[in-house]
Amino acid sequence: MRLTSLAELLGGAVRGEDREITGASTLEESAPGDITFLANPKYRGKVNETRAAAIIVAEELDLPISQIITENPYLYFARVLNLLYPEKPHKAGISESAYVHPDAIVHEGACIYPHVYVGADARVFENCVVYPGCFIGDGASIGEHTVLHPNVVVYDGCTVGRHCIIHAGVVIGSDGFGFVWDGKRHAKIPQKGTVIVGDHVEIGSNCTIDRAALTSTRIGSDVKMDNLVQIGHNVVVGDHTVIVAQTGISGSARIGKGVVLAGQVGVAGHITVGDGCTAAARSGIVADIPPGKVISGFPAMDHTRWLRVQTVYKDLPELLKRVRELERKVKALAED
Amino acid sequence: MRLTSLAELLGGAVRGEDREITGASTLEESAPGDITFLANPKYRGKVNETRAAAIIVAEELDLPISQIITENPYLYFARVLNLLYPEKPHKAGISESAYVHPDAIVHEGACIYPHVYVGADARVFENCVVYPGCFIGDGASIGEHTVLHPNVVVYDGCTVGRHCIIHAGVVIGSDGFGFVWDGKRHAKIPQKGTVIVGDHVEIGSNCTIDRAALTSTRIGSDVKMDNLVQIGHNVVVGDHTVIVAQTGISGSARIGKGVVLAGQVGVAGHITVGDGCTAAARSGIVADIPPGKVISGFPAMDHTRWLRVQTVYKDLPELLKRVRELERKVKALAED
Amino acid sequence: MRLTSLAELLGGAVRGEDREITGASTLEESAPGDITFLANPKYRGKVNETRAAAIIVAEELDLPISQIITENPYLYFARVLNLLYPEKPHKAGISESAYVHPDAIVHEGACIYPHVYVGADARVFENCVVYPGCFIGDGASIGEHTVLHPNVVVYDGCTVGRHCIIHAGVVIGSDGFGFVWDGKRHAKIPQKGTVIVGDHVEIGSNCTIDRAALTSTRIGSDVKMDNLVQIGHNVVVGDHTVIVAQTGISGSARIGKGVVLAGQVGVAGHITVGDGCTAAARSGIVADIPPGKVISGFPAMDHTRWLRVQTVYKDLPELLKRVRELERKVKALAED
Repeated sequence: MRLTSLAELLGGAVRGEDREITGASTLEESAPGDITFLANPKYRGKVNETRAAAIIVAEELDLPISQIITENPYLYFARVLNLLYPEKPHKAGISESAYVHPDAIVHEGACIYPHVYVGADARVFENCVVYPGCFIGDGASIGEHTVLHPNVVVYDGCTVGRHCIIHAGVVIGSDGFGFVWDGKRHAKIPQKGTVIVGDHVEIGSNCTIDRAALTSTRIGSDVKMDNLVQIGHNVVVGDHTVIVAQTGISGSARIGKGVVLAGQVGVAGHITVGDGCTAAARSGIVADIPPGKVISGFPAMDHTRWLRVQTVYKDLPELLKRVRELERKVKALAED
Repeated sequence: MRLTSLAELLGGAVRGEDREITGASTLEESAPGDITFLANPKYRGKVNETRAAAIIVAEELDLPISQIITENPYLYFARVLNLLYPEKPHKAGISESAYVHPDAIVHEGACIYPHVYVGADARVFENCVVYPGCFIGDGASIGEHTVLHPNVVVYDGCTVGRHCIIHAGVVIGSDGFGFVWDGKRHAKIPQKGTVIVGDHVEIGSNCTIDRAALTSTRIGSDVKMDNLVQIGHNVVVGDHTVIVAQTGISGSARIGKGVVLAGQVGVAGHITVGDGCTAAARSGIVADIPPGKVISGFPAMDHTRWLRVQTVYKDLPELLKRVRELERKVKALAED
Repeated sequence: MRLTSLAELLGGAVRGEDREITGASTLEESAPGDITFLANPKYRGKVNETRAAAIIVAEELDLPISQIITENPYLYFARVLNLLYPEKPHKAGISESAYVHPDAIVHEGACIYPHVYVGADARVFENCVVYPGCFIGDGASIGEHTVLHPNVVVYDGCTVGRHCIIHAGVVIGSDGFGFVWDGKRHAKIPQKGTVIVGDHVEIGSNCTIDRAALTSTRIGSDVKMDNLVQIGHNVVVGDHTVIVAQTGISGSARIGKGVVLAGQVGVAGHITVGDGCTAAARSGIVADIPPGKVISGFPAMDHTRWLRVQTVYKDLPELLKRVRELERKVKALAED
């Protein structure tokens, strides 16, 4: 693909020689023929060393390398990747080694791989790809253009929207964690609700999302979830929210729109994290957070305060020494 | 179902009009025809706004709403849910698309879904439900009335008791983590033990429970485990213990009876947590804990102490300022 | 098996009566006929109480019990376990209930269980065991003598080396977590790289290892990973490194050789942990660590410093009291 062809398809202005592009890579790992990008100015120095044939940049560089000028080089690069390395096609139809209940409705344009199970009254819409080992329970629904990677489990009655990517081993709709002591043992609170996942959602491998007790656990549209994330029952996650790996959200918590929860965060039950909040890695959120806050630590506090607290924390032995020295001096002064 | 019919089946005293009950919900989400409950007095105010037809309460309310009076409204509500929304039936028998080893013993009253694998000498008892994609290894045993949700893996020789609910993706019996350096690389300590899970145990999705090196990893009866919990080899978990999501218990730890480990807790290897202990979320338990303690923090300490420590911790910058001010004053006094 | 036969096969010097060995166990759990071992001198006292027929020791004990003297008793014991309890054999061949793409190359000495899926151009080498429910994607490769336990997923194009043990539910090659905001929603950065797992690697159940964006996520040889570990895209893990349960490594981090990351550790993206480092449980590593360091805490610091910090931390309420007392005294002195 030539640079000018890329620009015709994706926009941007070409500067320098029109080169043939055969691959894409980072600045450092480029081979001749590759296109690369510069999104973060701190990597500007690496441009001189790249072997790439062309570079995507926000502002023209005074260098002999061929360039595409565009507002958002990283986004442009993502689009180039889609052109250079298209998704592999999947043959529509139901494998003979899959089990599809006679009362399920599977669109003829969906691809059902071997060893899939589709239950009664389940629906699989157009252009879905359901990889081997997936389970789609009775009455569950998978929206059009959604991909379930191998061994995904969607329990009875749960709904996944359109254009979603659900990675291997994800469990959607297992029972929420609810018990009541009956005097002898824990009686189960039946979990009769469901899970509703919006559109354009990506869920990382081996995540777990519990069904609600009575209503719905809801994952908004354009939510992006990394691997091994846990979502408790009745949780609501707002649109565009990003949840990084190994984070856990306890039952009935409400996470706003456009929130970022970094890795290994924990959110307590029944609390609200406002729209646009960012929680740094390992934050432990135990109280409501108003919109727009940046927080850290456990219990979570304002991020800038946490940074100051940590500065003192790591020097606690020295602080103790200073207090001891003060005690010695004050004693001496008192005895004078 | 009428209120009086509920009371005939489940006990409790009916007050007010005998209403037809068609659903169940929380105070806030009730529709007409629903039954709801009041378990926590702090939600008393919401009773006035509920649209429910009837409410389960511990003490009669001076309100026109129909009521069932019972000692434990939440437990009663759980039982009502079971009546109103019974479990779906499963057809006994072995799917033609399942593989059952000729030397396995599967009770004729068990339900084996497609794509299940049951190994040699494995046993599946009466009324078990084994969902698609489950693996039951050679010599493994699944007790009566136990449900294995899709893609559960029970390694060779492991035992799951009666009336258990094992959620999707759970792994029972993978090798414990044991190695010894042989001078060139890590030699594996063969893990020749097993896992024994008691009765009435519920295990959340994608949990992992390792087999013992030589003896048994043991999960007591009525243990309730949330999602993504990790149990190391040789661990013993006592009856009635509750383990919340993403908690990890290291090898050879002993967790007593009636313990509560909240979310994202970690327990070090070879230590003992006494009966009836409660560990708050994110506790890191690195030493033995006597029975009945409530602990928090990392390293875990008495919960009330931890609360006091946290109060000072979050104000560390101010404490440092006070020490600086003292130093200044003491210096001035000394120079007087 | 007689003691002298063990010594012929595995080396070591026999002392005392040549006994018949029928099992193996720890000092405390031994039955007559068992062989046991003493690796850690602190358990020396338990030798007197063992019921074992023989013991493996580093130095001869002045006791009537039969002994094998060897340099590394624990390693010797591991080898004895392999002799006494050999791995069960697997019948080579492809189950009729497996799906193997006509363009896949499966060695005739490999064992493919029912409900396995092997994609186009995938390779499964000699003596591999692929348990039920595994997915081996197009162009993926599984080296000789490697075992995939049930429901392992190896995405397209990923490579697992030789003599590996991959436990149930592991996901290798799911998409790395990369998005760029396009003004309306998160656009996906296509993840076009792969995962390369070395030889003699063991990966615990339900671990997740993401494919690289453009190049390879690489797991070195002899790496040992416990359960529920998360490895982000582009991560490199050096040979012989040990990663304990529930640890998460963010994208593009580089973990050296012979590193130990204990349980529930977190490693931030793009940082380097030097060869031979040890991170204590729950460390949160947010900056580069030079080789050979022992670290703890969050943000991670030198382990000995962390221990001193923790000592002051847990006594913060008392430190505050001392500061208050100083303030009172200094005030009194100033007023004198």
